[in-house]
Amino acid sequence: MKLEGMTDTAVADKGTGKGSGPEASIVRVDLGARSYDIRIGRGVLETAGAEIAAVLPGARLAVVADETVARLHLRDFSESLAAAGLEHAVITVPAGESTKCFREFERLCDEVLAARLERGDAVVALGGGVVGDLTGFVASAVRRGMAFIQVPTTLLAQVDSSVGGKTGINSRHGKNLIGAFHQPALVLADTAVLDTLPLRDFRAGYAEVAKYGLLGDADFFAWLEDNWKAVFAGGAERDEAIARSCQAKADVVAADERESGRRALLNLGHTFGHALEAAVSYETGRLVHGEGVSIGMMLAHEFSERLGLIGAETVARVHAHLSDVGLPVRIRQIPGQLPPAETFMDIIAQDKKVSRGALTFILTRGIGEAFVEKGVDPVLVTDFLKEKLEA
Amino acid sequence: MKLEGMTDTAVADKGTGKGSGPEASIVRVDLGARSYDIRIGRGVLETAGAEIAAVLPGARLAVVADETVARLHLRDFSESLAAAGLEHAVITVPAGESTKCFREFERLCDEVLAARLERGDAVVALGGGVVGDLTGFVASAVRRGMAFIQVPTTLLAQVDSSVGGKTGINSRHGKNLIGAFHQPALVLADTAVLDTLPLRDFRAGYAEVAKYGLLGDADFFAWLEDNWKAVFAGGAERDEAIARSCQAKADVVAADERESGRRALLNLGHTFGHALEAAVSYETGRLVHGEGVSIGMMLAHEFSERLGLIGAETVARVHAHLSDVGLPVRIRQIPGQLPPAETFMDIIAQDKKVSRGALTFILTRGIGEAFVEKGVDPVLVTDFLKEKLEA
Repeated sequence: MKLEGMTDTAVADKGTGKGSGPEASIVRVDLGARSYDIRIGRGVLETAGAEIAAVLPGARLAVVADETVARLHLRDFSESLAAAGLEHAVITVPAGESTKCFREFERLCDEVLAARLERGDAVVALGGGVVGDLTGFVASAVRRGMAFIQVPTTLLAQVDSSVGGKTGINSRHGKNLIGAFHQPALVLADTAVLDTLPLRDFRAGYAEVAKYGLLGDADFFAWLEDNWKAVFAGGAERDEAIARSCQAKADVVAADERESGRRALLNLGHTFGHALEAAVSYETGRLVHGEGVSIGMMLAHEFSERLGLIGAETVARVHAHLSDVGLPVRIRQIPGQLPPAETFMDIIAQDKKVSRGALTFILTRGIGEAFVEKGVDPVLVTDFLKEKLEA
Repeated sequence: MKLEGMTDTAVADKGTGKGSGPEASIVRVDLGARSYDIRIGRGVLETAGAEIAAVLPGARLAVVADETVARLHLRDFSESLAAAGLEHAVITVPAGESTKCFREFERLCDEVLAARLERGDAVVALGGGVVGDLTGFVASAVRRGMAFIQVPTTLLAQVDSSVGGKTGINSRHGKNLIGAFHQPALVLADTAVLDTLPLRDFRAGYAEVAKYGLLGDADFFAWLEDNWKAVFAGGAERDEAIARSCQAKADVVAADERESGRRALLNLGHTFGHALEAAVSYETGRLVHGEGVSIGMMLAHEFSERLGLIGAETVARVHAHLSDVGLPVRIRQIPGQLPPAETFMDIIAQDKKVSRGALTFILTRGIGEAFVEKGVDPVLVTDFLKEKLEA
């Protein structure tokens, strides 16, 4: 589970039969027989075909991409697959969160079967979190489990959703409530594709990067405070931030794949964040996931301060960094009307992080010191939210 | 993985807090942390609540039943749950294979969420194979995996589909092509409920009982030849046949949960059988699953004879037993028009038991000596089927 050679030419190192290739960092996710590599670096898409062929020799592929990503990256990706002799079908889905629905799940399952993929063949997600989550669930379900490969094309997907095997779709009762744990066989994170990502989406993904510092690595958070401009600009710092984020997630996932304990820490900011997303009916014009997480992390710190767990200076530091990078930090920054606190409480009560009626929150004792608190008093949360909805 | 005390009062033995209860055999399915018991006997439904409470203390339940089973058994089952203090919601689905569809999958997922079940709560399948397969897939997917309990009410479900964790729904491309491996936490097989089962359904389930003898246990097949009338009549022989069948399946599943090898033996008769079911569009008026399996097992033996693996006397013995119990043994016993052999081959090629274009069949070298044969020549199968479609 160590981070292998940040500057190694890992393609050559891994003996994939290729003598050269782009520089890549490799993060190993240790899950016994289901272990896999995350390959991170500029240009790893160019050698995607060879990498996939090395992991799944002889496999036929169904590549799922949304229309936006298909336009930008599908040609290069297909050429790379073809160069490695990999037969593949392409399935496109509409861009946007509403694609994570039962209807698209059914359609994709049918299309993968129509492509006559067999056991041992693979389904590939080329895109952001929406495509990865939906496609992973499809891969888990078709023939009760096909091999799955993630090629994340957003920062959010590269540092979070493509790693760890959580897949799923949304229900009318909430986000990600239907799905499976289905680990990929390989994750290929080409940091160059982030050059075409809109700034708003890059920022939203950055919220998850900052999260890894806040939840368990004060040094990383301090490093981000010093280096965030370089991370946004691209180059070595960006790759390093992504690799460190993947490593942090890989460590947590390896220790607790099914979220019976420590993995819940990854939900820092997410209970509030999901409720905010639901409150705006997942209208991404008003709020995208990472923005919800940013406000949610801020709320988690402010609520921790309220409980006397941290001081005002810690809250101020988190506020300063998230604001500096341009992320929203207050509920009221969300445009338009919002429901009352009681509605938020209903949404939170239906959240997955509820156990036997008690509210579970990720709270913190300082930068890098998040912990799982079960049995938070709902009255305290309601009062806190009422205040924040006015602030 | 041994079969515990066929005549023990197992409820008392297992220390569930109850001092008395119906006699039950217990078959343990050994799958490490996911191990579970199958409790088999007359009247185990009466103590279902106590048994479930012992395995999942404090859990709330969503009970899924088809309309027929609900009418016959839901009141008793609900009373047993209530007596054990278990809160439960009831969800009914239409009876019949067409219920194993995406639409019902979506509806059930939504209803389980609407019942506000949380992690640690459980979804219960009360019914036959259709309800068990569908409900198990729902349990696997809601919140990425809820606890699951099987209460099989048909012989087929008691000896086959409730054991081993295969769940799923049908696609327009074929049966059970979408699903998950999701093991139950407990299986309660009340053999008394089979008293209300129509004879045709009992026979169809019996095909799977005979299958365990044919695939790996010549002594059991001989025992069935001697005792099948008593098995049909009910009483100790029926319970013993069910327990031996569950034990046989448990052994195979424990050795190969994900069907990478030996578990494929359980598909004896199923490649042909599924193709026959598909060919009649799953019209159960013409053919139910167990009947397809019976004809399919017959075809598997005849094809094995064609390949010189077994002699005519073995084929005759299988033919005699399946005929004696009243199961169909020839394709032409299926009422109505059937498609040509080429259509069957298309269906078989889309079957899950295909690997990289080669046909995989379960063949046999004698009673109790089935084996997996990969790479069967499709031309031989086509010719064989052409002949059998005329026979």
